[in-house]
Formats: sequence, C-alpha cells, structure tokens
Amino acid sequence: MGTKLTSATKQKRRIAILGSTGSIGESTLSVLDHAGDLGEANFEIAALTANTNVEKLAEQALKYKPEFVAVADESKGDDLRAALAGSGIKCGAGASAVEDAAELDTDWVMAAIVGAAGLRPTLKAALRGADIALANKECLVCAGDVLTAAIAKTGGALLPVDSEHNAIFQVFDFDQSERISRLILTASGGPFRDWSRDEMVSATPAQAVAHPNWSMGAKISVDSATMMNKGLELIEAAHIFPVPHERIEILVHPQSVIHSMVEYVDGSVLAQLGTPDMRTPIATTLAWPTRTPSPSAKIDFAQVAKLTFEAPDLIRFPALRLAREAIMAGGIMPAALNAANEVAVASFLAGGIKFLEIAAISEQVLDRSVKLNGPATLSTLEEAMDADSQARRMAEECVAAKAAA
Amino acid sequence: MGTKLTSATKQKRRIAILGSTGSIGESTLSVLDHAGDLGEANFEIAALTANTNVEKLAEQALKYKPEFVAVADESKGDDLRAALAGSGIKCGAGASAVEDAAELDTDWVMAAIVGAAGLRPTLKAALRGADIALANKECLVCAGDVLTAAIAKTGGALLPVDSEHNAIFQVFDFDQSERISRLILTASGGPFRDWSRDEMVSATPAQAVAHPNWSMGAKISVDSATMMNKGLELIEAAHIFPVPHERIEILVHPQSVIHSMVEYVDGSVLAQLGTPDMRTPIATTLAWPTRTPSPSAKIDFAQVAKLTFEAPDLIRFPALRLAREAIMAGGIMPAALNAANEVAVASFLAGGIKFLEIAAISEQVLDRSVKLNGPATLSTLEEAMDADSQARRMAEECVAAKAAA
Repeated sequence: MGTKLTSATKQKRRIAILGSTGSIGESTLSVLDHAGDLGEANFEIAALTANTNVEKLAEQALKYKPEFVAVADESKGDDLRAALAGSGIKCGAGASAVEDAAELDTDWVMAAIVGAAGLRPTLKAALRGADIALANKECLVCAGDVLTAAIAKTGGALLPVDSEHNAIFQVFDFDQSERISRLILTASGGPFRDWSRDEMVSATPAQAVAHPNWSMGAKISVDSATMMNKGLELIEAAHIFPVPHERIEILVHPQSVIHSMVEYVDGSVLAQLGTPDMRTPIATTLAWPTRTPSPSAKIDFAQVAKLTFEAPDLIRFPALRLAREAIMAGGIMPAALNAANEVAVASFLAGGIKFLEIAAISEQVLDRSVKLNGPATLSTLEEAMDADSQARRMAEECVAAKAAA
Repeated sequence: MGTKLTSATKQKRRIAILGSTGSIGESTLSVLDHAGDLGEANFEIAALTANTNVEKLAEQALKYKPEFVAVADESKGDDLRAALAGSGIKCGAGASAVEDAAELDTDWVMAAIVGAAGLRPTLKAALRGADIALANKECLVCAGDVLTAAIAKTGGALLPVDSEHNAIFQVFDFDQSERISRLILTASGGPFRDWSRDEMVSATPAQAVAHPNWSMGAKISVDSATMMNKGLELIEAAHIFPVPHERIEILVHPQSVIHSMVEYVDGSVLAQLGTPDMRTPIATTLAWPTRTPSPSAKIDFAQVAKLTFEAPDLIRFPALRLAREAIMAGGIMPAALNAANEVAVASFLAGGIKFLEIAAISEQVLDRSVKLNGPATLSTLEEAMDADSQARRMAEECVAAKAAA
C-alpha cells in the first residue's frame, strides 16, 4: 500500500461522511457496523450530511450519534431539527452547513457527495489537512489541480474510493514512483464492447444502461457504454498518481475482477482483485494504512474460472482519445469535457441525440473550448465552475443544432 | 512490499552469489549487468561460488572482480587458482571455502546452491545477519525451523526468489499479517493437469518432464507433474509467512501469469503477475525495499488474452495432501517427505517405479517416519540431515520392494 504522507494512526479515528444517505455513504456505515460487530470500532462518527433525504439522515443520526448533521436542501432544515429534537445532536441546513460539516475537526472525511456540489466541501476538508476518502468524481475531473494543490500543501492523504484507483493505490509504492513503468486501468468495456460502430449508431438508452457487472445510475451507465467513464477515470488517475498519462494504459477486462494494476521497472505487475463490492475499497480507505474487515463476499477463483483481456478500440470508443486530449490541453479542459459529456448524455437519455453523437458533441465542445480559452490554467474552483458553465452552453447549442438538423 | 526488518538501504550493496554459474546465478548477474548498463550499478560483487564449473566461474571472476571466489569441488581448486593467477582475486576450494564466501562481510547473499549443499552456507550467511535471497528449496523444506530461527535472531531479511513466494512477498504487508485472511499459491497444474488417474498410471518420464510453462530440470519437472513441487512450496510458504498453513490455498492456474496472491480481511486480493522470467523476482530481491530495472520482457495482457483457474484435485495429486500432513507433523517430517520424494523421483526417471508410486512411496515413508520419530522437533542442521538420511534409506527399501514385486 502507499506509504505516503499523513499522521492517521490515532487509536480512534474521528470521521465525517459527506453524502451519508447515498450508496457510498450507506456502504461506509455498513463497513463501520461490521467493524463494530467484531469489537473493532476504532471510529467515531462526528458528522453526517445528506442532500435532501432527511428521514434517512435522521435515522442514521439517532443510531450513530454524531456531533453534527447537515442537510444541503435548506428547506429541509426544520424537518431535520424536528426529527432530532431532544437528541442533543446539532443540526444545520444549506450548502454552508455541509461545508461546516467538512470543516469540523475530523481525521478522515468520506467525500461522497454527487456532482459539483461536492467540490467546495471536499476542498475545505482537504485545506484543513484531513485524510480524504474520495468518491466524488468531479473533484478530480473538473478541479484536479485545485484539490491536489490543497492536499500537497496540508499533507493529508488522498484515498481513492473508486475501485480502479483504489486498486492502484493499494499496490502503488509512492516511495518508488519513479520505478513505476505503467499503470493499467482496467475497463469492463461496457454493454457495447463487442458491438460494431454501425450497430452503435442506433443504440437506445435502454441498451446503453444495461451494464454487465455493476448496478449503477443511468448517467454513469451511459458513460460506461461510451467508455467516457474510463476516460474520466484516466483523468483522475493522472491527478492521483505521479505518473505521466502516457504511461497510464487502459485494458479491457470484461469480468472486472482485476480492478487495476501497477507495473514496476523490474517487470513485476501488482494488482488488486476482488468481487464487485464497493465495501472493499471503502474499508481500505477507512483503515489505511492498516486494514479493517469488510462484510463483502470473498472471491472464489475456481468459480470465477476465467479472466479475459482485450486492447481498447479508440475508433469505436473515441471518449478514450478525448480524455487524453483533455489531459494534454490541461487546466480547465477536463472540466469542459466533463460538462459537455453530461449535457450530451442527458440529451441522449431524453431521446434528443443519438448514441454516437455523445462523443461527437463532447469533441466539438472540447475543440471549441481549447480554441476559445487557449492553454487556460486552473487554480480556483471558480475557474472550474466557469469552464463548466461555458462548456454546458456550448454543448446545449450543439444538441439544439442536432435536433434542428 | 514487505516493510519488514533489515537495514539494507546503503548506497552500494555488497553482494555474494552462492551458485553463480547455475541458472539463478547467471540470471542474477544478468540483472546486475542491466542495472550497470543503465548507470545504476549500486552493487559491488564481493564473492562468487560454483559447484564444479571452474571455467565459467573464472570467466565471471575476471569480469566482475570479486574479492573472493570458491569452487565446492576441492579437486578443481588448482584449476581455479591457475585461471585467476595474477588477478589479485583470492581463491578457495572445498565446502569450507564456499562457507567462507557466505561468511564474507556482505549485505546481501544469493543462496542459489542446489540441494543439501546449500544448507550450511546459507545458514552461515543468515547467522551473521545478511539479507538472504533464497533460491535453494532445501533450506526451508528440510531445515525451515533452523533457518527461520537464525533469521529471527539476527534480523536479516528473508527474500524469496521462487516466483510464487516472491509474488506473495511483494504484496504481503508484514505489519498487517494478522489482517491477512488467505495466501493463494498458484500452480500450473503440470503436464498431467487434465489427465485421469487411470492415464497417470502409465505416465512415462518423457511425458512427465514436458512442463508447459517453464523450462526446468528433470527432477523439478517430475515434481511439477506430481504437484509435489507445489506441496514443497506450501511447506516453504508456511515458513516464510506468518500465516497458518490452513489459510494457504493452492489454486490451479495453467497460464502461470498470476504468480500468487494475498487476500486481506477487507476482501482485497493483491497479486503479482508477470512473464515467466526469473530475472523479475531476482531483481526484486536485489533492490528490496527499492526497485531496480530488469531485462525481463514486460507482459502484454491483450496478447495473454485469457487466464483460467481450477481447484486442485487432491485425489489425482496426493502430494498436496502429503505436504500438509508433513507440515502438521512438523519438525523433521518435511525433510523426510522431501528425501523420500527425491529417491522415488530418481527411481521413476531411471525406470524403476511407476509414476503414481512416487507419491505412494513418499506417503509410506512419511507415515513410517512419523511412527518411528514421533513429534520430533528440529533445531539443528544435523537433525535435518539425519532425518533426510533415514528417509532415503526407507525410500530405497520401498523402491526395492516395488522392483521385486
């Protein structure tokens, strides 16, 4: 495991879960429950936050007794206070309350807020030096330079939760990073892995959201079908690990058992493997640099029986090429690509554009953004948000043009 | 990688290669040459030894200019001295000279002497606290308790060279060994992996030595065919890693790409993969705890295309069961099993017994040895050698009885 940074070896770790009612938040609590059942509860939950689900948040709060809970939706503040009346738990509502939760004195923060709303709280937690278990993609895709600069300054650890990055993190020796020859990011290949480009022309939203290995939301399922998901992960990997993107390869591995790999100059390839259960990577970030048991099922290799590998096809999956172009353009360009893709995917899901137009529009926006903004650097969240807005407007124009055509 | 023990982070590491003219010795020098070509020669070769091949040993000595070279075959001493006359390199001959080479002040010793002859020099190097790159199987199979006690006392590192144990070592966190739930030792399954027991009855030596993945000597090829090789590796693994043998599983993986794996309690399975080239594990032991480049070919997963896994069959491959029985009996029993197997394999290769009789004789000898010696402990090399001799005598009797039948 990474022997990087941090001071995180206290006896009882104080933690905050930003986004505790979502899938990652609930899995985090499930790992903590499991550790508790085994008499290994070396964690103290200090803060929980949710977007709108006050019922579940209040239930969690009454069970785990944090100091502070916050709901992002300001209109739900009264409901939260009512549900927790007499419990002694402090309540907050609105975006600033979620940021307060991030700024509470905790050792470890699960950053599991979905989307752009996760940027500011995560950055605040990083700026005070907490270890960040990062499950929010936007933090690195849109504002990677900002977040990694904050982490480098304070010396907290960046603990990736995503199964691919978590796998690499587990076998990446930060003391020997110049001795690493390749990162191999595995990809399931998505539902259209063996479809021809001609077949992909008429792919429907229903076909695109049928992911073979993981059960996921519609947006990320379409990203898996275009492989933009892997392109965004490439951008994240280039921020997390001190390895140039040219040395980060993508390998199609349909079974998703090998979660990713690191190759060293001596020819050793180290890999992390497991069942498709997010509680495993969450447990590794919770206990890092030690280990804690997780309730996830153990893998039975004789039953798995077979693992296969293929090179990715950049013609059928241009998103992989676009992601590298965005990394090379640098600064705000990954944010622009991500925003354009979000608009295009939403339009595809709503029946507005065809499947292959998702990547085509993303490419148009990326190209226009590079022409408009030149080699724009990125040093604040505001710049990232501006780039995001600009790209969304451009993508909306492209979508409208397709609809009019 | 194991964050265990040792002080081995000096600038220039002084090394000794015991068995420098054999396959492992030559591969070690090839890794050193490669590092040198890259301007990374942070090694100083202080001693080389060979069994009988004086020509090659002298050639190596003139190239690498060690302080001391030794040939085990005393009758070759004059040839060695003549070949190195005027070079200023000190020469020795006989078993004691090889031990002198092991006792020379070096930081790292490659223990690559084949067979029982490797026991005493390796133990001497361990007793003075050198890091031991261990390629000799007998040291752990026959005298594991003795060698590991020596290493525990002096605090040197035990760096396994065998590809399976080296793989485990690379992903085994010695600080978290109680958090390891399983070691998974992979096995090619050998040439008879999919043969029925009936077909194995009439297997010939020529069929048994045709190993699918690695090119090896006849004895070890037969051990691969019986899977005794994997049984002996199980015994070694139980000595190297602080994990009870019940948690060390054997998994048949015919492609031999995953060299072995470690499972942690959080469900993470960490593995080392690579091409079948011993220069990779040798390079990891040379540079540990850092990394050094090796000339071995890098793996191309898209070309590998497929990895498969099967549970091992203890009925067709009883050697796997015998190895566990020897571990459970403890003390001298693994030495007895190893000796019986050596005698039986030699007889099989000479046409004396049939293939399935190798395991049958090994089992008879193990059972008799347990009855005769009871729970005999092991604290000296002499006890191991005595157990070896006794088991050989018993095995010879069994072989003779088969021949007479």
